[in-house]
Amino acid sequence: MAIKFEVLKECNETRARVGRLTTPHGVIETPIFMPVGTQATVKAVAPRDLEDMGAQIILSNTYHLYLRPGHELIAEAGGLHQFMNWNGSILTDSGGFQVFSLSSLNQITEDGVWFRSHIDGSKHWFSPERAIEIENALGADIIMAFDECTPYPCDYDYARAAMERTHRWAIRCKQAHRRPESQALFGIVQGSTFADLRQESARFLADLDFPGYGIGGLSTGEPKPLMYDMLEVTVPLIPKNKPRYLMGIGSPDSLMEGTIRGIDMFDCVLPTRVARNGTAFTSVGRVVIRNATYARDFSPLDPNCECYACQNFTRAYLRHLIKAKEILGYQLLSIHNLHYLLHIMRGLRQAILEDRTLDYVRTVLASYDSEPYNVAGCRP
Amino acid sequence: MAIKFEVLKECNETRARVGRLTTPHGVIETPIFMPVGTQATVKAVAPRDLEDMGAQIILSNTYHLYLRPGHELIAEAGGLHQFMNWNGSILTDSGGFQVFSLSSLNQITEDGVWFRSHIDGSKHWFSPERAIEIENALGADIIMAFDECTPYPCDYDYARAAMERTHRWAIRCKQAHRRPESQALFGIVQGSTFADLRQESARFLADLDFPGYGIGGLSTGEPKPLMYDMLEVTVPLIPKNKPRYLMGIGSPDSLMEGTIRGIDMFDCVLPTRVARNGTAFTSVGRVVIRNATYARDFSPLDPNCECYACQNFTRAYLRHLIKAKEILGYQLLSIHNLHYLLHIMRGLRQAILEDRTLDYVRTVLASYDSEPYNVAGCRP
Repeated sequence: MAIKFEVLKECNETRARVGRLTTPHGVIETPIFMPVGTQATVKAVAPRDLEDMGAQIILSNTYHLYLRPGHELIAEAGGLHQFMNWNGSILTDSGGFQVFSLSSLNQITEDGVWFRSHIDGSKHWFSPERAIEIENALGADIIMAFDECTPYPCDYDYARAAMERTHRWAIRCKQAHRRPESQALFGIVQGSTFADLRQESARFLADLDFPGYGIGGLSTGEPKPLMYDMLEVTVPLIPKNKPRYLMGIGSPDSLMEGTIRGIDMFDCVLPTRVARNGTAFTSVGRVVIRNATYARDFSPLDPNCECYACQNFTRAYLRHLIKAKEILGYQLLSIHNLHYLLHIMRGLRQAILEDRTLDYVRTVLASYDSEPYNVAGCRP
Repeated sequence: MAIKFEVLKECNETRARVGRLTTPHGVIETPIFMPVGTQATVKAVAPRDLEDMGAQIILSNTYHLYLRPGHELIAEAGGLHQFMNWNGSILTDSGGFQVFSLSSLNQITEDGVWFRSHIDGSKHWFSPERAIEIENALGADIIMAFDECTPYPCDYDYARAAMERTHRWAIRCKQAHRRPESQALFGIVQGSTFADLRQESARFLADLDFPGYGIGGLSTGEPKPLMYDMLEVTVPLIPKNKPRYLMGIGSPDSLMEGTIRGIDMFDCVLPTRVARNGTAFTSVGRVVIRNATYARDFSPLDPNCECYACQNFTRAYLRHLIKAKEILGYQLLSIHNLHYLLHIMRGLRQAILEDRTLDYVRTVLASYDSEPYNVAGCRP
């Protein structure tokens, strides 16, 4: 088996748990946030910065790497870890989400999907077998099954059809997987925002005994409470001894809300994307650094942060960099936002271990003028 | 006096020399290349990277900082060093070059210049007094006089008039300077590509006894040999005990050619600008990383370089980053190019100390399929 997962502690007041996920590239303490390196680089952040902030696993995108520079080239380089010089763990998605959202879609059949590249319009074919072949070549520690990701809103019949196809594709992915000893293949629960579909999907995939499970197709536009409701009905049906990964979620509040509903892993481009736009997540809330109020603010971005940006620069300087479109501004805010998310997840793990989960969650959410949604729904 | 300059060794075969320039922010070993931080940041390079590569002094631009974020704001922050968190030395230009090249010029008079901002078109006034007032507020260790920078080609009469105005303005700058104890004001030799004007300018300014001298108005389009000829006639007229700074020059060959003609300091945006476009200076010549030949080149950018980019990444990966327009690519190539220039200048200093200057220069130039121009003109 490529990975080992142990639950070290279950929360006494919510479904949160602390775990230890071991991959061929090291130990990951869960719940964890995974920075996203779409094109084999976390945007504006060097591997040494990821190490400094304590990142244990990052995500990269099969769709993008397949198109550029190509998975064969990355395999020739010795795999994705070596190509990008990241020695921690890596998870690759399957390209499913991108094929259905980024590219212009040509045709979906039972066999797979024809799509056009968002880079040059060239025509390409992905199927469960093809996606796994590419993920095998990239060599990530965790790879995701090829799924059909539905948009929101989505009618029931289409959601059911896409879910059922996702299930058939999951079986094909499992059969196509050539490196189960070094790469763990996760199944992906679909079912849009329909509780019965989500539950059916979780049960179906649980029977296939994947080493871990993604929950896909959420955060595609639905209200957050609806997403949390879906987690509440879905998570209990995923085997307890397997890691649960909520795909594409990365706001501070959603990390807290997801964790108390039993999620172990998260990823999202949000922290680096908003950083490049000048928005920071901090222990004192969201800071939109372009605002004139920070022009002469010579205090750190986050008074409680140990990151390079907060230890060395002021809000006034960061504001200047972002307004002047200076790359250093993108670097510093990206480093900070990732550092902050990893920091609050470390704090959350500690809180779970010490039976003060909801207290901690409330403190983090309070910085964002928010409070936990439906705590009753998170009871263990 | 704000600075102290000692010549430690004169070359026995050229006009090169090794010196030690001490400013309120440390010691600078000359000849030196100064990375350019136009908007209070060396583009894509953090202060810790500058420290790692051994940068001792950087340059920043008065024109840009005056327009954004404003010199008063920087003064409030505690000065430019503190604003950008750079504890080494800083040199600011006067804005003369930018006013005459970047902005749309409204009117030049004996008093000063009206110009329009390149950012928002707003109207501004610079004069010798105003430029020095701004430079005093920024607080760099070395500040430059406000000069009239001529384009190339330039007719003799205009070159003479601009030079004479530059001389009158130099006197006004000196009188306007309010912080001579902590900031050294350098005069700027002008005269376009006319030997007699260059010599007249050097003599005139030498009499004003500035603590150092810039040579301006070169590298504005004239052939390099013409620039070197100008240095050969100008440098001998600048007092030997003062640092000589060739403004806006930063290609590896020009650093070598300038040094053997007696230049102590250089600056240029070239290394970081070409880096963002995917071009590297290396010990094996110029590497245009976009070229297809590097697609599967899994060797380092420069096999003889100790920088973070060369120690950790391959040409294939850097090519991927640049082609994918990833910020990390701009960071890594910028770090490398600056590291390389500082490295060859360290080597050049050592070579001068060991009486093998021309040997060293020939080796560096050979990587660029070049050889020293008119060695006879460089004799001490």
